[in-house]
Amino acid sequence: MFTPQDAHWMARALELARRGRYTTSPNPAVGCVIVKDDHIVGEGFHQRAGGPHAEVFALRAAGGAARGATAYVTLEPCSHYGRTPPCAQGLIDAGVARVVAAMVDPNPQVAGRGLAMLREAGIAAEAGLMTQEAEAVNVGFLHRMRTRRPFVTLKLAASLDGRTALANGESKWITGPAARRDVQRHRAQSCAILSGADTVLMDNAALNVRWQELPGSLQQHYPEAELRQPLRIIIDTQNRLHAGLRLFAQPGPILLLRSKVTGGFSEQVEECLLPLSDHGKLDLTLLLDELGRRQLNHLWVEAGATLGGALFAAGLVNELILYQAPMLMGNPARGLLALPEFTAMSQPPRLAWQDSRFVGDDLKLTARVTD
Amino acid sequence: MFTPQDAHWMARALELARRGRYTTSPNPAVGCVIVKDDHIVGEGFHQRAGGPHAEVFALRAAGGAARGATAYVTLEPCSHYGRTPPCAQGLIDAGVARVVAAMVDPNPQVAGRGLAMLREAGIAAEAGLMTQEAEAVNVGFLHRMRTRRPFVTLKLAASLDGRTALANGESKWITGPAARRDVQRHRAQSCAILSGADTVLMDNAALNVRWQELPGSLQQHYPEAELRQPLRIIIDTQNRLHAGLRLFAQPGPILLLRSKVTGGFSEQVEECLLPLSDHGKLDLTLLLDELGRRQLNHLWVEAGATLGGALFAAGLVNELILYQAPMLMGNPARGLLALPEFTAMSQPPRLAWQDSRFVGDDLKLTARVTD
Repeated sequence: MFTPQDAHWMARALELARRGRYTTSPNPAVGCVIVKDDHIVGEGFHQRAGGPHAEVFALRAAGGAARGATAYVTLEPCSHYGRTPPCAQGLIDAGVARVVAAMVDPNPQVAGRGLAMLREAGIAAEAGLMTQEAEAVNVGFLHRMRTRRPFVTLKLAASLDGRTALANGESKWITGPAARRDVQRHRAQSCAILSGADTVLMDNAALNVRWQELPGSLQQHYPEAELRQPLRIIIDTQNRLHAGLRLFAQPGPILLLRSKVTGGFSEQVEECLLPLSDHGKLDLTLLLDELGRRQLNHLWVEAGATLGGALFAAGLVNELILYQAPMLMGNPARGLLALPEFTAMSQPPRLAWQDSRFVGDDLKLTARVTD
Repeated sequence: MFTPQDAHWMARALELARRGRYTTSPNPAVGCVIVKDDHIVGEGFHQRAGGPHAEVFALRAAGGAARGATAYVTLEPCSHYGRTPPCAQGLIDAGVARVVAAMVDPNPQVAGRGLAMLREAGIAAEAGLMTQEAEAVNVGFLHRMRTRRPFVTLKLAASLDGRTALANGESKWITGPAARRDVQRHRAQSCAILSGADTVLMDNAALNVRWQELPGSLQQHYPEAELRQPLRIIIDTQNRLHAGLRLFAQPGPILLLRSKVTGGFSEQVEECLLPLSDHGKLDLTLLLDELGRRQLNHLWVEAGATLGGALFAAGLVNELILYQAPMLMGNPARGLLALPEFTAMSQPPRLAWQDSRFVGDDLKLTARVTD
């Protein structure tokens, strides 16, 4: 049973957890608050894979005050020796009386064992407070733990009539500066950005995170020196990319998928062969399997109608984020998604709305693909 | 100078005015509240052209109590003898001390003369309280008074990627029942519904108002026996419509625009020649001019991509209402608007958002065309 006070402290733990979303990959973002006599005696959040977990920061800050206290954690404390000792043991050693977790960790290495360890040590350990909010903080990590593949968000920008460029290819700019800054924040939260050679060549796109364009509130907690660049993954089926592009002038790792490995790129670039099906075609499911093995939690896709449509048609898109500009480009302009032709209204994929909000002059729509 | 109490009573007058929106055409919807010693002594709203104005109902209810009272009206009281005597005179005769109008009536027959009459009679008469709300109640009437043409709302329904039907024409249903009920409410408020022969033939559409589908809250104030059917205007350039269609089986006037007048329709149908330009092409501007002369305030357009695009391209659309369903139909599906091909991003028409809200499972977007 949880009290309104429990929810109050968990909300603080979630707030802390969210600060880690930009840097903890491939780990989940976790926050922890230790409360005794209605006061916070220690709090912390996980900052970086390999670094201390949220519970460690909070216990350190609490010191002896942790004895008899309640610990609020946004994810079940870990039970296994990884790069750090198990947090469940740390909470036991500190003499904590009660542990409230927002949710059980679906990581097969934990999966309830953290809570079990605590209970065996006589600690009142419960999970299930503000679970939905906790799920939202780690949508990518949780999806990968459950499916072994990254959570895929397809980002699109279009006019009110669903057009992404004029017939002649012109598209600068459909959406406004606020929407483009919002994209920077999403890129910064993602583990990898997927795009195609067309997109890279058309705009000479760098597809990196530009710290200067992140919201001021985020910059405060996230100094430029600590900026993590997501892995940029480019599908270059026809080997058209060359080392002179802006993509390669920006720091950060790049995975280049090509029909043959030619070399000639800087060492930030890993050049790989395209994952092909038995019929010799690009196999996006194989690609997503590989990205799961590489522990990428959240894949942010900025691509054209062809790659976006192919991901959708393969059932690999989990979420759609559409920035809609209040303009009309007309039927001659380019369409949003190359999908196979449907012949009955039961066939088109249906989504579930998550959110609708104005971002500057544009409308930002978020919808999830339902299973 | 207006007080918060003034705004309180004007809000009530606006609430009353809105009840008239379904029946007053071609007149504006107007509400009136008469207040004395902080109590309403009389109120009313205009219900039907030819019937008493809002002030008449309110003064009747107030009787002798109107003497020394304040009258709140959502539109300047009229000053001319039309089908009824001038309301300004009525207020003077009743001995009202003060009149607050939300806005001046742009009708050239009034245009400030109502307020002037009141002031000449020694009544404190002011305008400009909650003007924006008052404008919204009569967007069609006010637009016609200012431009001599009806206000045109183009209604569209599409998937998230801006598609209105599959390549084979299938479109039942893109939007859900709540959106379709919302359309009924808009139809009921409009003076006329414009459509094309394609739309009528494809769905065998009746394009009428179905009282049973109006919101319950509206049905309470608007009995089925009083239902006003908007004029249905159908552009039938190739004379394809025939008397057996559902369109003609529903009550209510119909204006049929055709390349030749053949007769053979029931007496509810007025068959006219298409308004043509000097080059012999359908001229939508001439059509809108004629509809203005016929005192149609608000034109609700339910049409396909061709007619919708032509209205937009001619600069005749004032407002767009788009019901967006959370589904993706893909590039082979049919597009939203046939506009000329644009070659620079400065050319596509830009709109200003008015509203975004969920209606059942669909998102309803409203945007205005900026001048």
